[in-house]
Amino acid sequence: MMSEKLILGVDIGGTKIAAAVVTGEGKVISRDYSPTSAQAGPQVVIDNIFATIDRAISSSNVALSQLSGIGIAAAGIIDSENGKVIFSPNLPGWHEVSLGDAVHQRFSVSTYLGNDASLAALGEWRFGVKKQVTNLIYITVSTGIGGGIICNGKLYTGVLGAAGEVGHMTVDVNGPRCNCGNVGCWETLASGTALAREAVKHIKEGANTSIVEFAGGDLTKVDAKVVFEAAKQGDKLANQLIARLGYYLGVGLANLVNIFNPELILIGGGVAKMGDLLLKPAIKVVNERAFATSATSVQIRPALLGDDSSILGAVAFVLDNLAEGSTIRGE
Amino acid sequence: MMSEKLILGVDIGGTKIAAAVVTGEGKVISRDYSPTSAQAGPQVVIDNIFATIDRAISSSNVALSQLSGIGIAAAGIIDSENGKVIFSPNLPGWHEVSLGDAVHQRFSVSTYLGNDASLAALGEWRFGVKKQVTNLIYITVSTGIGGGIICNGKLYTGVLGAAGEVGHMTVDVNGPRCNCGNVGCWETLASGTALAREAVKHIKEGANTSIVEFAGGDLTKVDAKVVFEAAKQGDKLANQLIARLGYYLGVGLANLVNIFNPELILIGGGVAKMGDLLLKPAIKVVNERAFATSATSVQIRPALLGDDSSILGAVAFVLDNLAEGSTIRGE
Repeated sequence: MMSEKLILGVDIGGTKIAAAVVTGEGKVISRDYSPTSAQAGPQVVIDNIFATIDRAISSSNVALSQLSGIGIAAAGIIDSENGKVIFSPNLPGWHEVSLGDAVHQRFSVSTYLGNDASLAALGEWRFGVKKQVTNLIYITVSTGIGGGIICNGKLYTGVLGAAGEVGHMTVDVNGPRCNCGNVGCWETLASGTALAREAVKHIKEGANTSIVEFAGGDLTKVDAKVVFEAAKQGDKLANQLIARLGYYLGVGLANLVNIFNPELILIGGGVAKMGDLLLKPAIKVVNERAFATSATSVQIRPALLGDDSSILGAVAFVLDNLAEGSTIRGE
Repeated sequence: MMSEKLILGVDIGGTKIAAAVVTGEGKVISRDYSPTSAQAGPQVVIDNIFATIDRAISSSNVALSQLSGIGIAAAGIIDSENGKVIFSPNLPGWHEVSLGDAVHQRFSVSTYLGNDASLAALGEWRFGVKKQVTNLIYITVSTGIGGGIICNGKLYTGVLGAAGEVGHMTVDVNGPRCNCGNVGCWETLASGTALAREAVKHIKEGANTSIVEFAGGDLTKVDAKVVFEAAKQGDKLANQLIARLGYYLGVGLANLVNIFNPELILIGGGVAKMGDLLLKPAIKVVNERAFATSATSVQIRPALLGDDSSILGAVAFVLDNLAEGSTIRGE
């Protein structure tokens, strides 16, 4: 371990912050968590980030001076070049926050910042599939749908780092209104939120289902997890709703297959934990709707790194930047 | 000119073959055309390609031995690595045809083959915008919609060269059936074919319009060009139909803006000749539907090379391959 690089990765979620000390090979040495306390505003969140990093380092037996870099993954529009969070849906009040500078000043370690779904794609590619493919799309399906793109063996983030917003491609031009202001976005039909919305609609219409029992009789507690639990116990409506979710997931995946002709699509995020119940109908739709050449050359599989995609992606991002001799956010 | 490279570019369309001798700077020295005679099958088409190349060379005062390479653009799934046309919607009977080998054997010049829309993107990027952007999407809107992708300053064609089939992304999951077998593809709503179909539908329903007069009273002659002519003369329905086409064009463009966050989208193809009448409503929709960061950072403009996008792209493809020292399809 003496000769190997050590990197600290941070993943800032809407509810929790995770930090881990990781080797250059992707092995996690130590990790720690804090609540994000996003509603308390940027300064409190930044203090929580500092504290989580401190604890991850102290439990690792690694000295701060041994770290080659810190990588940070956050949702939203991230200006990696300047280490700024331009806007984040998870972090109220964050507009053009110089998080990279703040972390660099506190720890005196070169710090690199990127979008969480893009970095997850990078992490899955480097540490999950070990760069065995050249073109990979990573999708995270949870309350929304995010995406990251590896093309020609390189992370692709677009001109301002905003690429990969696949959850907001219109797949139903006359579909439901999305939080983003658009209509018929993929995530209005194929996310965990969409699943819960449909379940509640059917329950209110008097459907015969055990979903509401799995939610403890409380309609506001119906979410993707609850529907999945009911489905596993044989609830007919729950199974139908998940198959419908898989159908819409497949419609968007077929679009990505036609646009990118990738070797591999990896599906992460909470909803992806449904496994075959969700992926089988999705893959069927891809085979029906996408061009045969591209449909037969793609593999669609669950992501390999579980909840660590983004944090390991942040580590991979640091390694890439160090290899390129970048001087962004540090010396 | 003595020291400059000379390349022969070929564009194989459904109705005509174009060949041109071009300098490494993209200056066309001579050009020639033949009918494709696609219905007569591969051997006749290949003979037509040979004859067109012969004539373009003889009218150029350039000796065959002076050519550094031949580049060929064709619609469909092209295996560039092996110089094969796997499948082409424009060329009936072509399945895994070794066109690269055939041309190389006939002319003893290194020959490179690529998809026409992908090469058009490359041509527009190299000779149109002179590589002044890093991420560019090229769209051709004619009877269908095709696309080519430049990302991270490089042509992106996916694992089997089938990337860029943006015309077949679903934008209306319950929309019209497409020739590709899918439903609600972008090109079923935003292509010249879609425009003509809507015009005929309205005429049959008894709409008050001069479109049918511009088609010489023959409904089968109603196409995008005819509707455009009527619109320019103030026909109300024609103008409404083009605005509707622009709306649907914008829906798909917004998807590409969200997915790629590109600096530039260039629109080529016959329908794009409608200019602002089409592009203004499309850009309005992009601003309404796409993420603000990406919508405000993209320029959407008519393509710069007109009908030469693909032929100059084929030339650019040869230059790229020569620069990489590739030995594909020749020594």
